[in-house]
Amino acid sequence: MSKPVRVTVWNEFRHEKDSSHAASQIYPDGMHAPIAAWLRQQGMDVATATLDEPEHGLTQELLDKTDVLIWWGHLAHGEVCDEIVDRVQLRVLSGMGLVVLHSGHHSKIFRRLMGTTGHLKWREADERERIWVVEPGHPIAAGIDRFIELDRVEMYGERFDIPAPDTLVFISWFEGGNVFRSGCCWNRGRGRIFYFRPGHESFPHFHNEQILRVISNAVNWAVADNPGFDDVANERESLEPIGAKD
Amino acid sequence: MSKPVRVTVWNEFRHEKDSSHAASQIYPDGMHAPIAAWLRQQGMDVATATLDEPEHGLTQELLDKTDVLIWWGHLAHGEVCDEIVDRVQLRVLSGMGLVVLHSGHHSKIFRRLMGTTGHLKWREADERERIWVVEPGHPIAAGIDRFIELDRVEMYGERFDIPAPDTLVFISWFEGGNVFRSGCCWNRGRGRIFYFRPGHESFPHFHNEQILRVISNAVNWAVADNPGFDDVANERESLEPIGAKD
Amino acid sequence: MSKPVRVTVWNEFRHEKDSSHAASQIYPDGMHAPIAAWLRQQGMDVATATLDEPEHGLTQELLDKTDVLIWWGHLAHGEVCDEIVDRVQLRVLSGMGLVVLHSGHHSKIFRRLMGTTGHLKWREADERERIWVVEPGHPIAAGIDRFIELDRVEMYGERFDIPAPDTLVFISWFEGGNVFRSGCCWNRGRGRIFYFRPGHESFPHFHNEQILRVISNAVNWAVADNPGFDDVANERESLEPIGAKD
Amino acid sequence: MSKPVRVTVWNEFRHEKDSSHAASQIYPDGMHAPIAAWLRQQGMDVATATLDEPEHGLTQELLDKTDVLIWWGHLAHGEVCDEIVDRVQLRVLSGMGLVVLHSGHHSKIFRRLMGTTGHLKWREADERERIWVVEPGHPIAAGIDRFIELDRVEMYGERFDIPAPDTLVFISWFEGGNVFRSGCCWNRGRGRIFYFRPGHESFPHFHNEQILRVISNAVNWAVADNPGFDDVANERESLEPIGAKD
Repeated sequence: MSKPVRVTVWNEFRHEKDSSHAASQIYPDGMHAPIAAWLRQQGMDVATATLDEPEHGLTQELLDKTDVLIWWGHLAHGEVCDEIVDRVQLRVLSGMGLVVLHSGHHSKIFRRLMGTTGHLKWREADERERIWVVEPGHPIAAGIDRFIELDRVEMYGERFDIPAPDTLVFISWFEGGNVFRSGCCWNRGRGRIFYFRPGHESFPHFHNEQILRVISNAVNWAVADNPGFDDVANERESLEPIGAKD
Repeated sequence: MSKPVRVTVWNEFRHEKDSSHAASQIYPDGMHAPIAAWLRQQGMDVATATLDEPEHGLTQELLDKTDVLIWWGHLAHGEVCDEIVDRVQLRVLSGMGLVVLHSGHHSKIFRRLMGTTGHLKWREADERERIWVVEPGHPIAAGIDRFIELDRVEMYGERFDIPAPDTLVFISWFEGGNVFRSGCCWNRGRGRIFYFRPGHESFPHFHNEQILRVISNAVNWAVADNPGFDDVANERESLEPIGAKD
Repeated sequence: MSKPVRVTVWNEFRHEKDSSHAASQIYPDGMHAPIAAWLRQQGMDVATATLDEPEHGLTQELLDKTDVLIWWGHLAHGEVCDEIVDRVQLRVLSGMGLVVLHSGHHSKIFRRLMGTTGHLKWREADERERIWVVEPGHPIAAGIDRFIELDRVEMYGERFDIPAPDTLVFISWFEGGNVFRSGCCWNRGRGRIFYFRPGHESFPHFHNEQILRVISNAVNWAVADNPGFDDVANERESLEPIGAKD
Repeated sequence: MSKPVRVTVWNEFRHEKDSSHAASQIYPDGMHAPIAAWLRQQGMDVATATLDEPEHGLTQELLDKTDVLIWWGHLAHGEVCDEIVDRVQLRVLSGMGLVVLHSGHHSKIFRRLMGTTGHLKWREADERERIWVVEPGHPIAAGIDRFIELDRVEMYGERFDIPAPDTLVFISWFEGGNVFRSGCCWNRGRGRIFYFRPGHESFPHFHNEQILRVISNAVNWAVADNPGFDDVANERESLEPIGAKD
């Protein structure tokens, strides 16, 4: 029997504590709560961590036993310490998976790993989104029909400033006339990274079973096959004889 | 008549000032000198800049009129100011091309744009290298036969910790038994990046016409077709009517 | 002064000869006529060829002096001789560019080069399309703003059965709720291939200057830098000495 | 408990029946025999099929219950019926994995799925090969150290005429001075394809446990997550209302 996947769900957890914000009604225990509950139902071993904990809850000890980290942040990206970003980046390069949700496109860790700004267009107009599957054979699309439909969303639109994904799994259609690369995979070092667009703090998308299904699929996909850090290694001895030069 | 390409050749320029170092003999005016001379011969408009100048010679003004920046650094990567790295990164995302040479694989700007460590294996054993063309149709390989042969080189070997190149143009064979992805293209934002392996400070490879040919090919390839910065742009007005929701 | 690009515009040319079909009104001289006229205005050296000519107009002689071939076909894909498909494929692998338009997604030559079925969803409902630029730095997007809008189109929707493009330049939004990867680049051998979605026979899209602009951009992009055929070449002599084995 | 992977090992099986050929000594029961035996040891459900059986042993019934097909062919590629190639291609696009070994680079099925010639350089000179891992995090590299060393091989060298791999896992170094992309992954339709270089008929590489390890890793990687055929489906009804046009 294989060991359960160890996931850590990281959440900024600010909107939800503001009683005047819709998020406090939709996610009274934080957005990480329904995500964590869903992943536990799938048999995963789940921890949570939030911005205002010491070290943002992301101690080296916790990261070392995390197979996949989920990241949601929005208004306080700048408050995440660079030292913690360094630590998370090295763990990803060593094989820890990373699933970045929605407004996490502007997080320090996502920009660090991408090398780009993560900029995009956006609009809050309660519009419909249809998330089309373009790679139906990909494991992250397992159990999803031709598309997922969400009735009211914040729009994210192209141009999305990212490196071209290694695999593009989903493209979103928006009622207001835009499109977006909404499910993107990259490899960095030995780590796998997935960006998934839905998840605005003012909508209950993390209670939507199809959205949760994609997240658990992404976690399973992101578990490293062969973790390890590719260190500098001066290979002083040659593998073959080297001839004398004149 | 099209305007000449504007190139800036950046060099750390430390080894060459050390009279006890072979570099001081091979490149008395700095490694940037023969590269700049070659590019001028190709009709390009060439500037140079070095680490110990104010702002490392990379003022905003100079970068704004640079189409392609060439980067060579080795022992003083850590002395490059983060503010200058930020500045160069934004220019690349806005369309400035970047050609990173040899030990530049560990430069701040390359690691910033890649999101990875840039680690690799290396060995100094005066061995032969054969740089094979794997994409003979690529513009960077123009004028190069099946391979370029260098008699004495420092070895760089896999695992090279980079994102998989958007296009892999060259693979190196080494006498001592290693291989290396030695010519790699990436797009980031509107900028084009090329990494090229040869160019150790103790060997005259920047006097080798085939190596110089690859560098000028890379400069021509890296010039942006449509420069510009993809800024955050809240698209408040929808392009299509958005229906009322219940 | 560089020599003008030599383009051949290939058209099935059947709909337009049927006086009961809208195409006969919109394109009385065939769809190839306005495309050829536009390309001539850009200074290109343009030939045309059609299905019902001997060898479909695609003699070896013509192909040998064609830098880029444009392909439009629809109802008679099956009538294209396999020998001509072989001939075109070899020319593409040798460096001839290929621009496949609209219903050409089901042509023998496109399926041959892709290795997939080219299947997609479609609908004729006079709906609006908005073709979004996702790679604004790509030469094929030069001179195009954020998107191209077409008022009435036939819809093409995902899942589009193609190999993931080497570069995805455009994504289409459709009024009826679908999305499509509508501008896709691939390299095969030394040849460059671009698929572009618009161009239904019942609409005047080949009279639309933005659509024509994309086509001429694609032709310029598809011209080979280093044409030539990568033949089997038994390299009998080794480049390095091979040691005796025990 | 998950069901065992169903593999079919296809072999041309001609060299081995020629008693004057080394293959008849090294592989008296055919090259497919040790591969099949190894895969059975890994708990897989293994069938074999060979060229001279009716339908080359590849009945629709067998293919329909094959998760991954392994292909070895060399001197009789031209004897494989086009109808069987069609059948295998459709199964791959529907999700059947395909692992192509060594001289299978020139097989009809590989060329069909790639769209290119599969041409390469080669030399028989009993030289050493070192197969370097360039993506140590990839599942196909599981259990393999930095490289696999083979003492005597036939050389395959670049330029290898293939579409750039979706993932490049291995690069080979050869004693005689060449390099080769020797472990390449592609997706086509819902199917996964892996090309692996070793396996000449005159050497016992299919008795080498590291080579066999890569083959079983590749089989496990190539099993479809979501099999199914992406058929033409006219989506006559729109998902959103389409406005009247003037």
